[in-house]
Amino acid sequence: MDPEVVQIIDQRVLPHQLAVVDLRSHHDAVMAIKEMWVRGAPLIGATAAFGCYLGALEAPEKGLHHHMQTVYSDLHKTRPTAVNLSWALDRVRKAVADLQTKSDLIKMTMAVAQDIVEEDVKICRDIGLHGLSLIETMHHSNERSPVQILTHCNAGRMATIEWGTATSPIYHAHERGIPLHIWVDETRPRNQGARITAWELGERGIPHTVIADNTGGLLMRQGKVDLCLVGTDRTASNGDVANKIGTYLKALAAHHNNVPFYVALPSSSIDWNASSGDDIPIEERDPEEITHISGFDGEVIRRVQLTPGESAALNLGFDITPAEFVTALITERGICPASEQGIRSLFPEGNYCPT
Amino acid sequence: MDPEVVQIIDQRVLPHQLAVVDLRSHHDAVMAIKEMWVRGAPLIGATAAFGCYLGALEAPEKGLHHHMQTVYSDLHKTRPTAVNLSWALDRVRKAVADLQTKSDLIKMTMAVAQDIVEEDVKICRDIGLHGLSLIETMHHSNERSPVQILTHCNAGRMATIEWGTATSPIYHAHERGIPLHIWVDETRPRNQGARITAWELGERGIPHTVIADNTGGLLMRQGKVDLCLVGTDRTASNGDVANKIGTYLKALAAHHNNVPFYVALPSSSIDWNASSGDDIPIEERDPEEITHISGFDGEVIRRVQLTPGESAALNLGFDITPAEFVTALITERGICPASEQGIRSLFPEGNYCPT
Repeated sequence: MDPEVVQIIDQRVLPHQLAVVDLRSHHDAVMAIKEMWVRGAPLIGATAAFGCYLGALEAPEKGLHHHMQTVYSDLHKTRPTAVNLSWALDRVRKAVADLQTKSDLIKMTMAVAQDIVEEDVKICRDIGLHGLSLIETMHHSNERSPVQILTHCNAGRMATIEWGTATSPIYHAHERGIPLHIWVDETRPRNQGARITAWELGERGIPHTVIADNTGGLLMRQGKVDLCLVGTDRTASNGDVANKIGTYLKALAAHHNNVPFYVALPSSSIDWNASSGDDIPIEERDPEEITHISGFDGEVIRRVQLTPGESAALNLGFDITPAEFVTALITERGICPASEQGIRSLFPEGNYCPT
Repeated sequence: MDPEVVQIIDQRVLPHQLAVVDLRSHHDAVMAIKEMWVRGAPLIGATAAFGCYLGALEAPEKGLHHHMQTVYSDLHKTRPTAVNLSWALDRVRKAVADLQTKSDLIKMTMAVAQDIVEEDVKICRDIGLHGLSLIETMHHSNERSPVQILTHCNAGRMATIEWGTATSPIYHAHERGIPLHIWVDETRPRNQGARITAWELGERGIPHTVIADNTGGLLMRQGKVDLCLVGTDRTASNGDVANKIGTYLKALAAHHNNVPFYVALPSSSIDWNASSGDDIPIEERDPEEITHISGFDGEVIRRVQLTPGESAALNLGFDITPAEFVTALITERGICPASEQGIRSLFPEGNYCPT
């Protein structure tokens, strides 16, 4: 493998193509995050760390840190909502602060990026083992078979390195033979559910059904959802959750139909500086993601227009689900109430930085 | 105009094409309703009545009523949720019950269909004038400018003959110079909002913005929605409302954010036999409406696949919004609470059949 190349999967063309793309500069990493070739809070963090490594390769022998400031800044500006991005950049920044040579900088940025990847695998596995207990309980109570789980967007292994966050309990339950059926919200406008979550679940042979985002409320009223399980791009210290636009609507429906609503997250997604969801910036993306859509016509991926040419569109990427509608948070250290006290009970040290 | 032809607009290709299609048999009318060339509860009723007229043209001189039974039955089976369909068919059936000749049958079916059309225009205009008062009040209170209205699906003139139901108050307010801005839910899977409502509003020069169905909850939290205004395919006698899938989620969000949620309906959409929403059948449509989508590629309308080929999809067409989340019903006779008492206060005679 070329040590000056970082390889990613271009998720924009899933499930129709599995395209591996080479990133050769920190600008490539910026593009990959900004244009959502990679997405999902943990994977954004990991890609940013590898972007720092690519930036280190480009660094002049003199003015190393000046150069890296530009690299951090370019990467930081890509997407505003996922806090893992600044978490990963801060980690690199601290690790390289005292280094003097380019070769040390290259080695350390690679080491931090690899650490983030290894930790991510472990963290996601642990989230899965904790979340598994909730699915097991649901399976044993009332002998629900299959356990029906609704998920929104993609918080699967394509959003992380392995296991995923919200999907990790699902994979663990499936491996243990618990019968499952997953309702997959298509997740407009980028359809990460219909494209990526459905593809991931299919790869593992897990029964699932894709639904329009509009459908979950009715399914909950009909008693066809046992629990909801989603990821998050940033969780405020009071337990308010920022996740893909539309998550809030599902949480409201869950609340009104007594369906448990769980959010799975690595602690790197907790923003200790955000006292509530009101402090979390909401990304506004290109309206063309609403007015146009891409799909497979049997031969190639084509982009078509959905709306009248004269009509404006607004594309808000995330919404805030107030903590009161979140049954519990599932973290790598265990399950806790979505509240400041709950989060502190698992993370008394506050700002979590693995050693 | 050929008296043996009924012309419709094929709404499947809006806004990219304005295609007028000739219906030449009752089977054509069946196809037009079933495949959603026409849609929207009032327009389905009117098209069914014209389908009876086309059926009358096909009738043998002997066995008129036996033939018409087949016509009613074919039309009735097209779509289950909109009650206007059976309402219109019942009206034709009663009107022709005693007729003996084919020429009388043809004249009477045409007369009933034309009556339904004329009444629809008047009813929708009256709904608009009653609903206008709510928008005027919102405009004057707190000097909200523009008044921001969220609507779901299409309850506009393309769902009726003229004015629309939910859009009628909007058109009337716009004509009176009240500044408006409409949030248009795209309304997956068939995108009647993004395609038809956006096109209708654009035709009238009414400012509007298309949003993913996932977005309305956040906008309400942000205080950017002054009221919600939707139509209905069937309203139970207790005020529960069946409307396009996803309506329920918006009603929940409106409830939690103190945003008034209004449902506009002609009394032909009231099902006096349904004591609650639980009595209303929910149409399940072809999953390909979820897995595939059509759009304009600049030259032609193309259909592309969105999901992995192996993934199942479920396509439920409507959901039930419990009356407790409906601020009021706007009918042709005025505004009333969404309750049995409220509805009876405007329609004490029950099953409404205009004279």
